[in-house]
Amino acid sequence: MMRSHNCGELRLTDTTKIVTLSGWVQRSRDLGGMTFVDLRDRYGITQLAFNMETNKDLCMQARELGREFVISAKGEVVERSSKNKKNPTGEIEIVVQEFSILNVSKTPPFTIEDDTDGGDDLRMKYRYLDIRRNPVRQNLVLRHKMAIEIRNYLNNIEFIEVETPVLIKSTPEGARDFLVPSRMNAGQFYALPQSPQTFKQLLMVAGMDRYFQIVKCFRDEDLRADRQPEFTQIDCEMSFVTRDDILETFEGLAKHLFKVMKGIESITFDRMSYADAMKYYGSDKPDTRFEMRFTELNEQAQNKGFKVFDDAELVAGINATGCAEYTRKQLDELTEWVKRPQIGAKGLVYVKYNADGSFKSSVDKFFNQEQLKDWAIAMNAQPGDLLLIISGNTDPTRKALGELRLEMGKRLGLRKPDQFSCLWVVDFPLLEWDEEAQRYFAMHHPFTSPLPDDIEMLSTDPGKVRANAYDLVINGVEIGGGSIRIFDKDLQAKMFEVLGFSAEEAKAQFGFLMDAFQYGAPPHGGVAFGFDRWCSLFGGSESIRDYIAFPKNNSGRDVMIDSPSPVDIKQLDELGLKLNPATKS
Amino acid sequence: MMRSHNCGELRLTDTTKIVTLSGWVQRSRDLGGMTFVDLRDRYGITQLAFNMETNKDLCMQARELGREFVISAKGEVVERSSKNKKNPTGEIEIVVQEFSILNVSKTPPFTIEDDTDGGDDLRMKYRYLDIRRNPVRQNLVLRHKMAIEIRNYLNNIEFIEVETPVLIKSTPEGARDFLVPSRMNAGQFYALPQSPQTFKQLLMVAGMDRYFQIVKCFRDEDLRADRQPEFTQIDCEMSFVTRDDILETFEGLAKHLFKVMKGIESITFDRMSYADAMKYYGSDKPDTRFEMRFTELNEQAQNKGFKVFDDAELVAGINATGCAEYTRKQLDELTEWVKRPQIGAKGLVYVKYNADGSFKSSVDKFFNQEQLKDWAIAMNAQPGDLLLIISGNTDPTRKALGELRLEMGKRLGLRKPDQFSCLWVVDFPLLEWDEEAQRYFAMHHPFTSPLPDDIEMLSTDPGKVRANAYDLVINGVEIGGGSIRIFDKDLQAKMFEVLGFSAEEAKAQFGFLMDAFQYGAPPHGGVAFGFDRWCSLFGGSESIRDYIAFPKNNSGRDVMIDSPSPVDIKQLDELGLKLNPATKS
Repeated sequence: MMRSHNCGELRLTDTTKIVTLSGWVQRSRDLGGMTFVDLRDRYGITQLAFNMETNKDLCMQARELGREFVISAKGEVVERSSKNKKNPTGEIEIVVQEFSILNVSKTPPFTIEDDTDGGDDLRMKYRYLDIRRNPVRQNLVLRHKMAIEIRNYLNNIEFIEVETPVLIKSTPEGARDFLVPSRMNAGQFYALPQSPQTFKQLLMVAGMDRYFQIVKCFRDEDLRADRQPEFTQIDCEMSFVTRDDILETFEGLAKHLFKVMKGIESITFDRMSYADAMKYYGSDKPDTRFEMRFTELNEQAQNKGFKVFDDAELVAGINATGCAEYTRKQLDELTEWVKRPQIGAKGLVYVKYNADGSFKSSVDKFFNQEQLKDWAIAMNAQPGDLLLIISGNTDPTRKALGELRLEMGKRLGLRKPDQFSCLWVVDFPLLEWDEEAQRYFAMHHPFTSPLPDDIEMLSTDPGKVRANAYDLVINGVEIGGGSIRIFDKDLQAKMFEVLGFSAEEAKAQFGFLMDAFQYGAPPHGGVAFGFDRWCSLFGGSESIRDYIAFPKNNSGRDVMIDSPSPVDIKQLDELGLKLNPATKS
Repeated sequence: MMRSHNCGELRLTDTTKIVTLSGWVQRSRDLGGMTFVDLRDRYGITQLAFNMETNKDLCMQARELGREFVISAKGEVVERSSKNKKNPTGEIEIVVQEFSILNVSKTPPFTIEDDTDGGDDLRMKYRYLDIRRNPVRQNLVLRHKMAIEIRNYLNNIEFIEVETPVLIKSTPEGARDFLVPSRMNAGQFYALPQSPQTFKQLLMVAGMDRYFQIVKCFRDEDLRADRQPEFTQIDCEMSFVTRDDILETFEGLAKHLFKVMKGIESITFDRMSYADAMKYYGSDKPDTRFEMRFTELNEQAQNKGFKVFDDAELVAGINATGCAEYTRKQLDELTEWVKRPQIGAKGLVYVKYNADGSFKSSVDKFFNQEQLKDWAIAMNAQPGDLLLIISGNTDPTRKALGELRLEMGKRLGLRKPDQFSCLWVVDFPLLEWDEEAQRYFAMHHPFTSPLPDDIEMLSTDPGKVRANAYDLVINGVEIGGGSIRIFDKDLQAKMFEVLGFSAEEAKAQFGFLMDAFQYGAPPHGGVAFGFDRWCSLFGGSESIRDYIAFPKNNSGRDVMIDSPSPVDIKQLDELGLKLNPATKS
């Protein structure tokens, strides 16, 4: 090894040792008589000391070292006179006896510091320099530690990691597949998996009992902010289980991760139906770090002569506790905020519950103090609170009020980054109606089992059927989801029928799974977690990109390696393909 | 859970417990008064007992159960009267009180037994049934355990697993890439990685110090036997190391695996130069479980009037100890064997060193007893041994003699499956001359560092330059390989020049790496192991396919899901592609 120790491990107890360190020059300070060089590696920073009096030549050489030069230095560990308590190695320094330059460096395009001067684009292009910075490196270390913990936890409870294939088969259902042309089977294509869903179900049919995999998945989607064309799932499946067995098993995993990664010893998991989540939070992934539930006010607020409310399907509000002092300006600004197209409300009604017990609202023309008091009682409000009310059709009203709730939570400091609230949202609808395609689509995927009580409705009222499906939501972020699967071939065939597949289409696309169900498929279910997302939640960053070593940008490009890129015509010839400029975008 | 215990865990100490088991009907035996059903899951087999006298109805129902039906049964654990010591649960059985059929099964297309009646093709098509068989399932469990052990071992010595991208950039160098058309960047393509080579080097430039990844890699090669288009590597890289640091680090990993996976406490690792491996074993991956080294006989055997030898570049032989009694028929058969096109020798000369000290050879016309004795001395032979000699041009002679050595090792039982011999082959040639392309190719890849002593020859005699590269060979199987990398941008540029890249081509394909080398690249090197291969070595099977859950066949097809397959023309339109029937094979 070109070092005896790394740059993070030497302490006062090591003084008098002769050591060799290798690393990068973080900075150097020339103080006349002394020159100090901070040497950095993955493990820390150690100060190298050069003395002009005792070793002038060496000191002069050290003064030539540029930032990010790679050097190897040998010397004695000595106690520092001026100690740096912030740095674990800050009580010692190395009095260098000899050193060699292993490699030089041009001046980096941005500073290698925790707070860098480099913009996003530049840091992406030079990602290998960005990773040298503590915050980025620590994100990757956190990701590694999480993966190790997840694997060992699941291994300890009999889960087996099985690698499923990456070159699989394209299915038109769901998001777009990436295709991979086959050279040996010209004119035919593999597809990259959007998830190993069918394979993990086949592993259950195969009797593997408990499967997991931390696995790359792929979606050729138009990339919204914070989506990546390739992402990583913690994919799991179990046999002979009910929903609650699965929720408890993975609560166990989540609790373990909270403990080892965040030092949080006790955390609870609530459960809420999709219907309640929508009714009380206007979202299927409510942030439950704070209450501020919706109160529906149709009874109290309709038929009192205010046409906007009277014409509405839903009148609902939230109680912004302690906000009665909001100024007119603040309220106008909030009103504009909810009317933005992203939120989509037509307007905002407010009621101030003043400290003196009186009410002041934007609808005083239509409602008297007594009526407003009824609202306040329904909303459990106290003097000093502010009621914010939106009305209209049910779904958009809930969505807008949900956004407003999140915004007020943020403004009131109720969404604390160091607090975690975990929630299983259960009993999702099985199907979604698509107006454009005039057909139902599976809300999760076509293998999700309906709730047993609702199976009959598949024929009579498919839109009402609830799925035996669940999502894990932490702090309003969907971390994962899954379901109990259909394991009966007739029910699966029925499901394909409801989804508008002809028997032939179902067979062509999923024949192997339908076949497998004929040979003793066990009851099974599972879950998949977004690993990138979970890392970012624990790491405290908003963007999954910060937890991916070499991410792609919003156009799906890797700007560092400059990919995707044109290929040689010969390669296309071999694949039996040619470019079709007519359809080029 | 639909069970209180699994089918592998109940023992005599559990008697009188009321338990619920779920699993598959392995077989049932109807003995008149009693019916026994063997219930199977991943963990084992437990016998269910049904008594015609005490519960006739239930017993009659049990008799209807077909093979591979999925059932859940509740009953009491009782001691068996006739115990089965071969089965860990064989001392007890469950007297069933009630059971339910969770799913029925058609009769499987082959028997779910250790020795099945199913042929390869059938088992591949119904892989989910094949995995139910013990040998296949155990292979996947072994693979999982190896992966867990590898990760924990490397994690404990500061290696960090970093996921590198799967959608990367095509490079014409090396094997063929799988291409992935980009929809958002029409006319452009990603490629699937043949290895994360450049990314792991960038991670070293990024200061990650010690990286590993168990990762899928892809090669669009014409599939020879036992190759897969997607395969898994244990990919590793370290900074600030010399070759020996790397060899010692990964000997540590290998020793750990031998211990935990095979129960082998002490195993040694030899080192041999590529030159010696070729000279003494005729192979860069010699099986060193047995000696039988080549002896070169040019001095002893040439210029004695035997034209075949006199015209040969090389005369070399092996000593098949104790084989002097081989019959004429056996020797003729061996001669035919080495003359097969796969072996390619022109003939085989034998010398029997008889028990009485005399010699009998196929070249008695040209060599007298004294001369043959010289050969025997050179080859360290004793009375009773058989000398087998091949001559011709050096490379084909070595290759043929190497094959003969392996064959004789096999026939003599010297290649014991439970014995392991580990060897690092070092100092490979850096370059290979390609006659057809009239240029050098990198024997490993263009990033491999030459041995420091040989760097000067890059300009004068590139073919002679040795690489700082190494392979790990176990029992004649190449398990992995790697090298110290070039980390100097000028040397890397020189290397591209020797490989016939123009400066522009080098920049277009590897510009990001050359750029990275300008910003303080540390000395680094690494290794990659074939995970599938290592599993098969430990599992005792010849084929890596046995250790892959869902392998592809020799045409790169997954016959279970029927992939690759044609896709919708709409999908191609979106990608700006069309089929090019002119080049269709």
